[in-house]
Amino acid sequence: MQTLNVDLGDRSYPIYIGTDLLDKKELVEPYVVGQQVMIVSNVTVAPLYLDKVKALFSRFDVHAVILPDGEQYKNLEIVNRIFDALLENRFERKCTLVALGGGVVGDMTGFAAASYQRGVSFIQVPTTLLAQVDSSVGGKTGVNHELGKNMIGAFHQPRCVIADTDTLNTLDDRQLSAGIAEVLKYGLIRDLSFFEWLETNMQKLLERDSESLSYAIERSCQNKAEVVADDEKEAGVRATLNLGHTFGHAIEAGGGYGKCLHGEAVATGMLMASDLSQRMGKLTQQDVHRIDNIIDAARLPTRAPVNMDYEKFMKYMSVDKKVEAGEIHFVLLDAIGKAVVTSEYDDVLLQQTINAHHAST
Amino acid sequence: MQTLNVDLGDRSYPIYIGTDLLDKKELVEPYVVGQQVMIVSNVTVAPLYLDKVKALFSRFDVHAVILPDGEQYKNLEIVNRIFDALLENRFERKCTLVALGGGVVGDMTGFAAASYQRGVSFIQVPTTLLAQVDSSVGGKTGVNHELGKNMIGAFHQPRCVIADTDTLNTLDDRQLSAGIAEVLKYGLIRDLSFFEWLETNMQKLLERDSESLSYAIERSCQNKAEVVADDEKEAGVRATLNLGHTFGHAIEAGGGYGKCLHGEAVATGMLMASDLSQRMGKLTQQDVHRIDNIIDAARLPTRAPVNMDYEKFMKYMSVDKKVEAGEIHFVLLDAIGKAVVTSEYDDVLLQQTINAHHAST
Repeated sequence: MQTLNVDLGDRSYPIYIGTDLLDKKELVEPYVVGQQVMIVSNVTVAPLYLDKVKALFSRFDVHAVILPDGEQYKNLEIVNRIFDALLENRFERKCTLVALGGGVVGDMTGFAAASYQRGVSFIQVPTTLLAQVDSSVGGKTGVNHELGKNMIGAFHQPRCVIADTDTLNTLDDRQLSAGIAEVLKYGLIRDLSFFEWLETNMQKLLERDSESLSYAIERSCQNKAEVVADDEKEAGVRATLNLGHTFGHAIEAGGGYGKCLHGEAVATGMLMASDLSQRMGKLTQQDVHRIDNIIDAARLPTRAPVNMDYEKFMKYMSVDKKVEAGEIHFVLLDAIGKAVVTSEYDDVLLQQTINAHHAST
Repeated sequence: MQTLNVDLGDRSYPIYIGTDLLDKKELVEPYVVGQQVMIVSNVTVAPLYLDKVKALFSRFDVHAVILPDGEQYKNLEIVNRIFDALLENRFERKCTLVALGGGVVGDMTGFAAASYQRGVSFIQVPTTLLAQVDSSVGGKTGVNHELGKNMIGAFHQPRCVIADTDTLNTLDDRQLSAGIAEVLKYGLIRDLSFFEWLETNMQKLLERDSESLSYAIERSCQNKAEVVADDEKEAGVRATLNLGHTFGHAIEAGGGYGKCLHGEAVATGMLMASDLSQRMGKLTQQDVHRIDNIIDAARLPTRAPVNMDYEKFMKYMSVDKKVEAGEIHFVLLDAIGKAVVTSEYDDVLLQQTINAHHAST
C-alpha cells in the first residue's frame, strides 16, 4: 500500500492506494466522525461493492443511498435524495458520508457533505481510475445546472481517500483508457520522467497490473496535490490542469454529451494543444509524435469526431470564452513536462490544428 | 452613520448602520467584485426598494431576481431560480450578489453566493430589524428541507452589510417587535448595561426613532460579533445565542409554523428559560419580573399558545433533542447578562415552568 499525504494545513488528508483496501477496517475507522455513516453509491457500483463497503464500516450505524448512474443525474434534485436519506435517518452534524463510485458520485456526495447542516465529514472511495487520479485531490465538489456544467458547488476536502486498485477490475476498457488520459496529462504538464515511465509501461496499465496502476495513481495524485497546494483556490498554476480541456469541452459539447467520454475528449484535446504548440514554435515535431503515439497506445482517440469542423469548434470554444473571462485561454506546451497558460494564439494556426485533427469522412 | 467591523481575519467585513445609506454609492462600490451585480429580493420588498438599490449599483451591470415571499419558499427549488438568473445572464465567477430583504432572502442569497461556481461575493442589505441584528453576523446561510429547518447550507461571509434604518419604516409593528426580541436577547445573555438601556428606551424603538434603532442594532451586532469571533464554527459559547430557542422552536412547531413569528416564539421562550432559571435557583424573582416587563413593553407575547401544554412542549422539544445530541440542552440565565448552557434540569421544575406559561383558556 502506498500513502500520499495531501498537505492543506488543518485540512490535510491521506490518500491510500493499493489492493485489498476495502477489507482494512483499521485503515478507515480513524477517519469516521460520529457514529452515523451514510454510503452514497449508484445503481452500477452498488451491486459490485456496497456489501463490502458496508462491512468496512460495520462498527458504525451504516446506511446507504443509491443514486441513478450518469452525468445527467448530477443535479440538485438528485443531491436532494442524499439530504432526504440523511434526514429520514436523523443524521446529526457529527456524521460521515462515504462516496462509493466514480467522479459523479464523488462530486455529489462531496457537495452534500459540504452543505448538510453547513458541513459534515466525508470519505472518498473512488472506483474508477479517473476518479482516483482526478477527484481525489482538489476538493472540488458540485453538480451541473441545465445551463452549465459544475456551476453549483463548494470546495470541501475529504477526511481520507481509499483508492483500491481492485475496483478497477470491473471497469470497462473504455473507462480505463479515459482514466489513463488524465494520468498522461500530469506527465505532459509537469513531469517528463513520469511521461517516459508511461511510454514504457502503457501495456501494463492496460492489462490492469495492480502495481503499475498504484504507481500511476500515486504519481498522478502527487502531481495534482503539488499543483493544488500551490494554488488551492484555482488561480494561475491550477489552470495548467486544464490541458486539453478547451478543445475537449468543445468536442464533448459539439459531439453531443455522452457520445464520447470526458477522458477521450481530453485526450484528443491534449494532442490538439500539442499540435498548436508545435505550430507556434513551442514544441518539436518529434514531441508531438511521441504524444500522438502514447495517446494511440492508450487506445484513446487522436481525432475529433468528423462533424467537428473549424466553425463548430469556434462556436463551442466561444461559449467557454464568455463564461470564463472574455477571451479563449489555451494551455499549451513549451515541452513535454512544461505547460503554459496563454490567451495569445494565432487564428490561422488554430484553424490548421483543427483541420488536421478532425476525422476525415 | 456607525461602522462596526466584524473581525474574521481575511474574511473581516464592515456593517454600516444609519439613515440614507441606500443613496451612498461611494459606500458600497468598493465592495463589489467584478462588473456583474445580481440583486436578489422578494415580491414584498422589491416594490419598495429595488429601484433605489438598482440605482445604488448603477455603475455596474445590474440584474435582479425576485423570489416569492415567505419561509415556505426557503428551499433548494427556489434557490435554483437564483442560479437560473445568474446563468441566463452569463455571470462570471467574479461577480457580486446583493441580498435585499429579510432573513429568508439573506439566507438564500448567501447560500447561492456560497455555491455559485463554488463561491462568489455577496453584499447584504437587510430590510428587517431581525435580519439587521441577526443575519448580519455569523455567516450562516442556507435553506430548509421538508424534514428540517436550515438543514442545507454553508458558512459564507458577506463583503459588507448595509443596515439602513430607513427601511424599517415600512416594517409592520409585529415584525418590528419580533426583531426587538432578538435585540433583547443580547442584553439577556451577555450585556446587562444594554439591557438597562433597553428598559429605558423601549418606547423610542417602538416609535422607530432612527438614532435609537441605530444604537440598538450596532450594540446587538457588536455582541453577536464578539460571540461569533470567539467561536466561528459554533461550538460552546455560540450556543448561548440560542437563549429561548428550545422553548421557542417547540412553540413555532407546535403552534403551527406561520401562526407566530420566530421572534415572538423566542420572546416567550426567553421568559420561560428565565422562569426555569429562577426555579432552579439561578436567577432572582425580581429579575424574572424585569424580563417579563420588558417583553411585555416590547409588545411581545409572555405566554405560549393555549394548546401548548406540557405534553406538547415535550413532544416538540424531544424532536430537537434527537436531532441535536441525545439530550435537551437549555440556555439558562445565572443573571441578566450572564447565560449558561446546560443539559442539567429538573423535570418537575420544567413542568412548572411550562404550566405557568401557556395561556389559560
